Amino acid sequence: MTGRPTDHAGLETLTFGECLRLLDSTPVGRVGFHADGEVVILPVNHAVDGQDVVFRTARGSKLAAAEGQGLVAFEADAYDPQTQSGWSVLVTGRAEMVDDDAEIARLSRIGLHPWTTAVARPFWIRIRPTAVNGRQIPVSGQADH
Amino acid sequence: MTGRPTDHAGLETLTFGECLRLLDSTPVGRVGFHADGEVVILPVNHAVDGQDVVFRTARGSKLAAAEGQGLVAFEADAYDPQTQSGWSVLVTGRAEMVDDDAEIARLSRIGLHPWTTAVARPFWIRIRPTAVNGRQIPVSGQADH
Repeated sequence: MTGRPTDHAGLETLTFGECLRLLDSTPVGRVGFHADGEVVILPVNHAVDGQDVVFRTARGSKLAAAEGQGLVAFEADAYDPQTQSGWSVLVTGRAEMVDDDAEIARLSRIGLHPWTTAVARPFWIRIRPTAVNGRQIPVSGQADH
Repeated sequence: MTGRPTDHAGLETLTFGECLRLLDSTPVGRVGFHADGEVVILPVNHAVDGQDVVFRTARGSKLAAAEGQGLVAFEADAYDPQTQSGWSVLVTGRAEMVDDDAEIARLSRIGLHPWTTAVARPFWIRIRPTAVNGRQIPVSGQADH
């Protein structure tokens, strides 16, 4: 055991700094939002800009969710099936379309390229966190099954 | 190009059978649901049982979402950073707690063991899909950046 605090599910909780570092360590995360009364979860290539998550999108449901100014979720995780170790980070926040030209130019220089380029993704979405929570599987949880 | 249909974002759409096969090919997915007006996305170890997604949980928000009988989302994906290829599947459906003893006994035999065992996860949740949608990055989308 590492002495970290654990949640109700027995997972160790991560600090804010650890969460941001882990979000930045993986190129793919998932945006979750309401659409027509349902929960939608869609993967995106993302980057961390300061304390915000940014990604590019085409015109579609992710853009509509941002324009709706509602609370969205962003999740990233990583797992190692061999060791059954892993972590996950959940960001809750408000999504907004970036419409300032200088800001778009700056974001374009951070080197975030969507993996699929069949359709242009000219819109940048920024998620400003209202909460960031991260958890990891404790070492003690890996050994007893 | 494979001649598959593509969505508005230029991603190829997968068949229902392909979606189930891919869901079954990965041990970790993510459940998304409403909780207190926010979207929550949490990873789970899951299995595919027929056309349903099943997972085990401790008493907590995932169980509460199931008991609320609302629509939930389940997402799984896989990516290869080297080739920038990948797929994702999104299941929308109703979550329900499995409370039939024979059913619990049967599910317990499918060999689904949560990776973290610090807390017991005695409850089985079944998601009965109302919609299953899968997408993959087209081969043509990998080459031009």
